[in-house]
Amino acid sequence: LSVLLLLDCLGTLAFALSGALKAARSRCDVFGLVVLAIVTAVGGGTLRDVLLGAHPIFWLAQPGYLLLALLPALLVFLWSRPMARTEQPLAYADAVGLGVFTVIGASKALDHHAGWAGAIVCGCLTGVGGGVLRDLLVREVPFVLQKEVYASATIAGSGLFCILRYVHAPEWLALVGGAALVIVIRTFCIAGGYHLPQPDPPDEPPAAPTPLA
Amino acid sequence: LSVLLLLDCLGTLAFALSGALKAARSRCDVFGLVVLAIVTAVGGGTLRDVLLGAHPIFWLAQPGYLLLALLPALLVFLWSRPMARTEQPLAYADAVGLGVFTVIGASKALDHHAGWAGAIVCGCLTGVGGGVLRDLLVREVPFVLQKEVYASATIAGSGLFCILRYVHAPEWLALVGGAALVIVIRTFCIAGGYHLPQPDPPDEPPAAPTPLA
Amino acid sequence: LSVLLLLDCLGTLAFALSGALKAARSRCDVFGLVVLAIVTAVGGGTLRDVLLGAHPIFWLAQPGYLLLALLPALLVFLWSRPMARTEQPLAYADAVGLGVFTVIGASKALDHHAGWAGAIVCGCLTGVGGGVLRDLLVREVPFVLQKEVYASATIAGSGLFCILRYVHAPEWLALVGGAALVIVIRTFCIAGGYHLPQPDPPDEPPAAPTPLA
Repeated sequence: LSVLLLLDCLGTLAFALSGALKAARSRCDVFGLVVLAIVTAVGGGTLRDVLLGAHPIFWLAQPGYLLLALLPALLVFLWSRPMARTEQPLAYADAVGLGVFTVIGASKALDHHAGWAGAIVCGCLTGVGGGVLRDLLVREVPFVLQKEVYASATIAGSGLFCILRYVHAPEWLALVGGAALVIVIRTFCIAGGYHLPQPDPPDEPPAAPTPLA
Repeated sequence: LSVLLLLDCLGTLAFALSGALKAARSRCDVFGLVVLAIVTAVGGGTLRDVLLGAHPIFWLAQPGYLLLALLPALLVFLWSRPMARTEQPLAYADAVGLGVFTVIGASKALDHHAGWAGAIVCGCLTGVGGGVLRDLLVREVPFVLQKEVYASATIAGSGLFCILRYVHAPEWLALVGGAALVIVIRTFCIAGGYHLPQPDPPDEPPAAPTPLA
Repeated sequence: LSVLLLLDCLGTLAFALSGALKAARSRCDVFGLVVLAIVTAVGGGTLRDVLLGAHPIFWLAQPGYLLLALLPALLVFLWSRPMARTEQPLAYADAVGLGVFTVIGASKALDHHAGWAGAIVCGCLTGVGGGVLRDLLVREVPFVLQKEVYASATIAGSGLFCILRYVHAPEWLALVGGAALVIVIRTFCIAGGYHLPQPDPPDEPPAAPTPLA
């Protein structure tokens, strides 16, 4: 279980870094960096705890998560350009965080008697919620809605976690299996650049405008 | 009461369809369609339950609502252009959903001892909350703030529900009366295209820019 | 304590006015004005109560806060241009509201055993949360992330409040001290126009585009 905690910290750092970099790109001041780093790192788990009614919220019980998220914000404030160059390699740390957050979320939902559908939604929400809040705060369409196999990976992972728990596999196996599935899918898609299909645009394309003269 | 449940399902389907169509217009992938369909359908009730502290949230207790919202997302993914043509006629199904969601929200608030003001706010929130979250996620100013007699209809409906409960009318009468008022107002406004008044723009109009030459 | 209540009402009015004016500038209808006034005035405290699990939410227990926020919305609807001219002088009323909301939030967090980190976060959130929600609803990047010493003042104020409580100062002294610090910092910054530093933009500036001919 201490391995899980270590990976949880790694994921928190990777998520906080992505928030701080997005803040710097949006011309936020130093407070904005800190807020976006914290929101990205703990936002998903906060939404999960609020929906489950799991009080106290996890970072009120363990404020260490907030302190952990401060570190990347500080680094980006001091050295924004070198930190921006770490983003590409850190996509893999982000994938690890996504996998760990997902199974932690699904596991906490089952502990609160949320049922299988609730566990899948909470797993997905814990993984992607922070990124959605981050994108909303800097006024972008949340990228999970548009790009890459990201949220779908968390649904596959929390689904596998639920199946393993349903067949009475030991909890550690379900945690490892679900997280590993997310990480494998993400790594595969980062390396290959795969996307989900989009529907056709629902409206007919407008006719070409008549030239003025 | 089973009529209420049937209308609740109809409203859920209509709300989910509006979310899925908005997602398709915003170039979301298939996961984005599902998320926006679910958020639009259950978002208002979720905000209500979180504010009331009514745990478990209604769709954690009854995951059928989530499955119901998947259906329109699937239809839009497969046949986005034919589905877009159903939007105009479905404005009336949306009006039914708005009325039913409103009185369900107001009724649940009273059950949780929220008082009359709380019941009106919760009725309104249950009706319009899903649409507000949908518009935020695709980065539009929520249309309830700008256009049409939409939220005002829910306030009138939850107000009538509260008055009927206050004079000790039977619950079914209050539910039917409140929902009917919302549906009548909305139908009237859809057919006639009525809007609420806007204030004058608060700043003086800028002087016409001086031409360059 | 009745002084605190009076200042709380003053702050609610000032926050609601800023919400109603922003709604009018975004071409909202009269319902939009009411919603943005209420959201700006009670949004921060609502987020705090939801995170703390402090049910019932404060405005469900005391609906007077909602009625108080209706007044500025009505005034802006009737006389939008004269009200817009009060915005500059009312920045000082806004500073008072920020200070009072901050210490109320930090105090409530301690009452709910949230710990020192939780008290600082809740103090900050109570102060700035309403403004963040207001800016999100009209699709702006929340100004606390980008401009002025605003959120930082609430962190300083709730920090001082926590320190004073930690050394067993009487509660009234901690409340007055924390609020006064926020108000002094804000007044100083409004008068002088001070800002927090921004990091360098994280990406290299693009090379000048080659002219077409």
